Amino acid sequence: MNGSGERPGPSVEVRIASFDGERIAPKFDRLATEEPLEIRLRAGDQTRTIAITMRTPGNDFELAAGFLYNEGVLASYESLLGISFCVDTSVDVEQRYNIVNVDLAAKTLPPIETLERHFLTTSACGVCGRAGIEALETRGIARIESDATIDPKVISALPDLLREAQGVFAKTGGLHAAGLFDLDGTLLAIREDVGRHNALDKLVGWALLNSRLPLANNVLLVSGRTSYELVQKAIVARIPFVAAVSAPSSLAVDLARAFGVTLAGFVRGDRFNIYANESRIRDRAIV
Amino acid sequence: MNGSGERPGPSVEVRIASFDGERIAPKFDRLATEEPLEIRLRAGDQTRTIAITMRTPGNDFELAAGFLYNEGVLASYESLLGISFCVDTSVDVEQRYNIVNVDLAAKTLPPIETLERHFLTTSACGVCGRAGIEALETRGIARIESDATIDPKVISALPDLLREAQGVFAKTGGLHAAGLFDLDGTLLAIREDVGRHNALDKLVGWALLNSRLPLANNVLLVSGRTSYELVQKAIVARIPFVAAVSAPSSLAVDLARAFGVTLAGFVRGDRFNIYANESRIRDRAIV
Repeated sequence: MNGSGERPGPSVEVRIASFDGERIAPKFDRLATEEPLEIRLRAGDQTRTIAITMRTPGNDFELAAGFLYNEGVLASYESLLGISFCVDTSVDVEQRYNIVNVDLAAKTLPPIETLERHFLTTSACGVCGRAGIEALETRGIARIESDATIDPKVISALPDLLREAQGVFAKTGGLHAAGLFDLDGTLLAIREDVGRHNALDKLVGWALLNSRLPLANNVLLVSGRTSYELVQKAIVARIPFVAAVSAPSSLAVDLARAFGVTLAGFVRGDRFNIYANESRIRDRAIV
Repeated sequence: MNGSGERPGPSVEVRIASFDGERIAPKFDRLATEEPLEIRLRAGDQTRTIAITMRTPGNDFELAAGFLYNEGVLASYESLLGISFCVDTSVDVEQRYNIVNVDLAAKTLPPIETLERHFLTTSACGVCGRAGIEALETRGIARIESDATIDPKVISALPDLLREAQGVFAKTGGLHAAGLFDLDGTLLAIREDVGRHNALDKLVGWALLNSRLPLANNVLLVSGRTSYELVQKAIVARIPFVAAVSAPSSLAVDLARAFGVTLAGFVRGDRFNIYANESRIRDRAIV
């Protein structure tokens, strides 16, 4: 798609064909761009590639920062010296914008084991859902003990606010979105990606680069389903409220219950389900 | 969810709360199970864990076989000696069903580099979309040169056939589905998972374990969007027709065009888009 050597954008126009029930005719269509992003970590004179992820170009610095924050590699804005695209002119332009260098303030890179994502096997229990929960505890990540509460009408309003903030292309063309709101339902930021985990990484990266972490008084809305990994990222960013348009998985619910996240799903019209910690949802008549 | 030590099923019933626009009340709901699966490869007296993937339990042998086939580790049904759950009684029951041992007919494990998925960086171009395309060529995977054609009415009929074959829970509760059809639109197999790549791995694994590979006269339908990785798996299984209910990404289209896959998207009602190799779609009036 970017054989021309141009910097990749979030979407591209391509010539396709359409079948209208009767005949096939040419037409033009916009597609969400999917390209790999290589994240390189640098400290002192050391460099190491620590991840390659398929993503939609745009907000790549946020994606790198949010990913590294979630992995525990980047502790705060202060531990960051800079973020840049690859400036090596021997590298194709196309490729240069698919490589992000993250410079740490530290003089050396963190040990290799903290750079590898084998948390599911590092627990005593081996490989099972509990291992993922124990791995967070091992990292010193505590249960979210927030006294914050929210009006259920605020949660019901979120999907429309997210859709209004998305571009026309994103609404129709298949990008995942993650939106961050305050407890009154004001939209603070929205990020999109072909990968739903990336959309959340970009949002957390935005918060990190703007010194807004932890996100203690915020609600996260995701456009699709809620997986273990999405809840895990919300916990690390300390978000007490997570809502989704669709269903959560079993492990997403387990994790939300274990770490004090209020988890809503199937937020449609004025109804929704609450899968964990419903006591933070304000209501006159709790049964 | 499986703290009772039971073998995990594809869904679990949990007590949740629901907000109906007025009040919060308790209710029971079914969730798609999400649990890690560890895939261990064994040959002679060697054992190595080569992947841990979050998946919905069920068809785990197919998932392991399909994953390994796509990675080029398992060349055929004949190279497989057996597949089993972990029988180590010192391991929790819960954990045992999250570990699959794949025994190869070979006397030794394949070299470590073929077991690692770094294909995006092994190309001369470094990290970019082309690297993924070149990596397949490097593996000796050729363009699909199929003379097969398909009636567009067959493609339009696929989504309803898939939905009818899915359970009620899957339809409402957020599982991805992948269905394999013959060129007349007869459903051959359907597999579901919280991860859409897993659903396709299960389908390819089913074909491998039933000696049906390559899938040269088949159509694949996926319930969501089409990513680079889904098209890549279809190419390795030699499927000439891939259709999806939603949009493909830019790289999915690039890959389909490079490897001769007919790629349809937005299959809704009697209309759909054709993103690659539309000449295999039969039509009386091609413009």
